[in-house]
Amino acid sequence: MNSAPQFARVTVIGLGLIGSSIVRAVKQLGLAGESVATDASPEVRSRAVELGLADRIAATNAEAVKDADLVIVCVPVGACGDVAASIGPHLKAGAIVSDVGSVKGVILREMAPHLPKTVQFIPAHPVAGTEHSGPDAGFAELFINRWCILTPPPGADPSAVEKLAEFWRALGANVETMAADHHDLVLAVTSHLPHLIAYTIVGTADELEDVTRSEVLKFSAGGFRDFTRIAASDPTMWRDVFLANKDAVLEMLGAFQEDLSKLTRAIRRGDGEALFEHFTRTRAIRRGIVNLGQETASADFGRPHADLPKKAPEK
Amino acid sequence: MNSAPQFARVTVIGLGLIGSSIVRAVKQLGLAGESVATDASPEVRSRAVELGLADRIAATNAEAVKDADLVIVCVPVGACGDVAASIGPHLKAGAIVSDVGSVKGVILREMAPHLPKTVQFIPAHPVAGTEHSGPDAGFAELFINRWCILTPPPGADPSAVEKLAEFWRALGANVETMAADHHDLVLAVTSHLPHLIAYTIVGTADELEDVTRSEVLKFSAGGFRDFTRIAASDPTMWRDVFLANKDAVLEMLGAFQEDLSKLTRAIRRGDGEALFEHFTRTRAIRRGIVNLGQETASADFGRPHADLPKKAPEK
Repeated sequence: MNSAPQFARVTVIGLGLIGSSIVRAVKQLGLAGESVATDASPEVRSRAVELGLADRIAATNAEAVKDADLVIVCVPVGACGDVAASIGPHLKAGAIVSDVGSVKGVILREMAPHLPKTVQFIPAHPVAGTEHSGPDAGFAELFINRWCILTPPPGADPSAVEKLAEFWRALGANVETMAADHHDLVLAVTSHLPHLIAYTIVGTADELEDVTRSEVLKFSAGGFRDFTRIAASDPTMWRDVFLANKDAVLEMLGAFQEDLSKLTRAIRRGDGEALFEHFTRTRAIRRGIVNLGQETASADFGRPHADLPKKAPEK
Repeated sequence: MNSAPQFARVTVIGLGLIGSSIVRAVKQLGLAGESVATDASPEVRSRAVELGLADRIAATNAEAVKDADLVIVCVPVGACGDVAASIGPHLKAGAIVSDVGSVKGVILREMAPHLPKTVQFIPAHPVAGTEHSGPDAGFAELFINRWCILTPPPGADPSAVEKLAEFWRALGANVETMAADHHDLVLAVTSHLPHLIAYTIVGTADELEDVTRSEVLKFSAGGFRDFTRIAASDPTMWRDVFLANKDAVLEMLGAFQEDLSKLTRAIRRGDGEALFEHFTRTRAIRRGIVNLGQETASADFGRPHADLPKKAPEK
């Protein structure tokens, strides 16, 4: 429990799934003396007022960051540079500036040049989300038991890093620190490549000649529907991720293609032993993820089932 | 509600996830005067007795099918031919024989020659399952609101087809009828290709040099963990599926590879517009699946979240 706010004023720029979840948690936990938020879209700002997301909804980035002690930029990676330029001249000396982007190398390159030397810039990436987008999709519990990766640039003030880490731990996250380029390689595997594959296969199924779209939808419970969740993620966010992490994604794609060729060859040759060996190995990985608390142990992600009627009474 | 059993005796051969779910539902709904089950493994038969899965657990296939009116073979596709040979001489005239295999062309070719002309052979495929296997993994509600596809061979008795359809509807399933080769093409897209892709990517992530396995597990909530569910499916079952549906799977893999090449090229060239257009299109597919009742509308498959502590009372 927090007895006093961690920051006098926290500002969130961008009220999509992540930004609106952060500001909800800040309010619920009382982490800020005042919470301020803004969004480039007037409709989103109005909706944020209706939802009571923050203590104050500002009309511009400049106004939003005034006197803030912690500023978190929650916009698609491709827009982070422009946002940094818009807030740079208005930041309070000593403020911590952070973000939530899924790619970290490019964030440093595009945001840092616009920020004054008097602030501490500590990029961050909470590895959490859902397939839904926008200010209504957020919820305060999103980060509980998820990891938040901090990628402080060389020379960052350790006390600022620790303060930001404490903030994320208050939101329920586990915090890890690593170099930006290593982050981008790790996330290329655990997030970017899976999204690319899911986007691909869902598109493939949608364009077949011999199988109708209605058949694809009806019989999707055989596995396909799992992929549609990821392929329903925000298109702008993901376009930016692939453009910003091109090299690491292409490297991982190369490894994936090699493995897919191996399994394809095993199928073509009828090599059941190779298939069985591979499928047995992958089964163990999920157990590791469940044991680490990063996945539910319930069958089928815990998807709900209706009840069957009871047996008629015996005569 | 069923006032009278649909069949005097129902026999299930193979007590994995699907077989044990069927026999649980049969008992719960009172669909059979007597339910009989067996399994090739003595351990599974003992466990089935402990669990009280059926009215009677038989020691052999021959004994299990004696006097049965409906026999459902629930073993991996590659074992169906041998099971058919073992039960053929012992089947009651007029019995309906079915299966639950994920590939239907091969089932007809391998089972039909062993079955007497006096029985009705109607292959079936309930498009339902979880990543768990074995007699303990089954549950009676597994088939509710899922599709069960029947592929009656030319000349099948329509009243037998309808009787089997009624059985599946009693278990909560929707029933559709189609030709075996069309089934194999449809399921190659909605089930077999997704499994192959998931098995591949999970294997790829497990073998990287620059990213440790512990990092893959820790940061899996970025998307990867979704794939591990499918890649945790039963290795024997899936080996058999890929061997039995080789042609259709290779055809769908070809379409997938073309689309993956297109998206890879868009990333390499920095073509954000092509990526955005593709990602917007795929988002719509999930809405279609949710609207058809084949997927939960809840964010993140409804995975559970812990609660945050409440804000400290204001002073």
